[in-house]
Amino acid sequence: MKLRYSPRSPFARKVLVVAYIHGLTNRIELVATPLSPVAGNDELARENPLMKVPSLVTDDGEVLFDSPVICEYLDALAGGDKLFPPPGPGRLRALRQQALADGILDAIILCAYELSQRPADKRWPAWIEGQMRKAHQGLAAIEREEMSGALTIGPIATGCMLGYLDLRFPDDGWRRRHPRLAAWYEAFQQRPSMAATKPPAD
Amino acid sequence: MKLRYSPRSPFARKVLVVAYIHGLTNRIELVATPLSPVAGNDELARENPLMKVPSLVTDDGEVLFDSPVICEYLDALAGGDKLFPPPGPGRLRALRQQALADGILDAIILCAYELSQRPADKRWPAWIEGQMRKAHQGLAAIEREEMSGALTIGPIATGCMLGYLDLRFPDDGWRRRHPRLAAWYEAFQQRPSMAATKPPAD
Repeated sequence: MKLRYSPRSPFARKVLVVAYIHGLTNRIELVATPLSPVAGNDELARENPLMKVPSLVTDDGEVLFDSPVICEYLDALAGGDKLFPPPGPGRLRALRQQALADGILDAIILCAYELSQRPADKRWPAWIEGQMRKAHQGLAAIEREEMSGALTIGPIATGCMLGYLDLRFPDDGWRRRHPRLAAWYEAFQQRPSMAATKPPAD
Repeated sequence: MKLRYSPRSPFARKVLVVAYIHGLTNRIELVATPLSPVAGNDELARENPLMKVPSLVTDDGEVLFDSPVICEYLDALAGGDKLFPPPGPGRLRALRQQALADGILDAIILCAYELSQRPADKRWPAWIEGQMRKAHQGLAAIEREEMSGALTIGPIATGCMLGYLDLRFPDDGWRRRHPRLAAWYEAFQQRPSMAATKPPAD
């Protein structure tokens, strides 16, 4: 398999964590793929028209995206019904937790684009505030989530999201606001799969 | 169940189409929920911290989002493995098609926000071009997709995306560029589930 990724993409990290847990890492060729929301990438576009990472080419030549689809595929390769539980309340909880973490990431990434890529005179403070409100309300909701129990894609997505938040907004102060989540993450980030996929500092 | 939606949201429409197909419409209370990416919505925030629609409260009081999770839940309520096929190539195709249509929608919606909500002097043409390139490349990829066969969430997401594209960018000209997709959509939008959920004009 061939995985297009970027070292700081939290969505690509989810895939790398799932691959690590399932012992699939050595079956995946990693292709670092530089990205910008305005510049595009012709090489990536030939595989994934949305020009996003992660993007996986399977051994059958099929292209898969986005990260939930790739992660479910890798889980199925490992026998299925592991990090994506079988239909029922456990699956719903895992998928809802993943959607919440991924949605917070979407908001944070839009803020990061606005602050780092958009020309300064075209930034719109109300947009940044609106997206950050989504992210902060999402974090407050996770503080109330049950993260223990069998490992699923929910906590994995949450851990990757928090790693990205620390990378891009190190002064956010979420640990002070959400001590229960901070304690969970402190332990979770020490898992081998998380330690092996930690993004490099900027 | 209670579904928060807005009449023009293509993601909410996916849920309405799935509910219609499975005969679940009369079990769902619809709550129209006005949204803006900058204004927020306190009532919605209490259920869904990301303040997005669709957002479903199940009969057990559990809140589900985003649209792929809700659609899969409704499919499971109807017995499962229908619009979301069981693990295998058919499921992968359906999920990839859904991810492509949803990703095109994300790009179109960012363009629509930029052009309709952001103050004119803070618009960034390169951003609009970058997002529109994703959308147009995505449409070109769908032109090559196999859309016939058993109905899945893939064609449903594609149909809802095209309906939204027509609503927001009626002069896009995609039918001229992609005649095969245009012919497919012409027939698809006449399905009862699509006709019953057609968004009102602006």
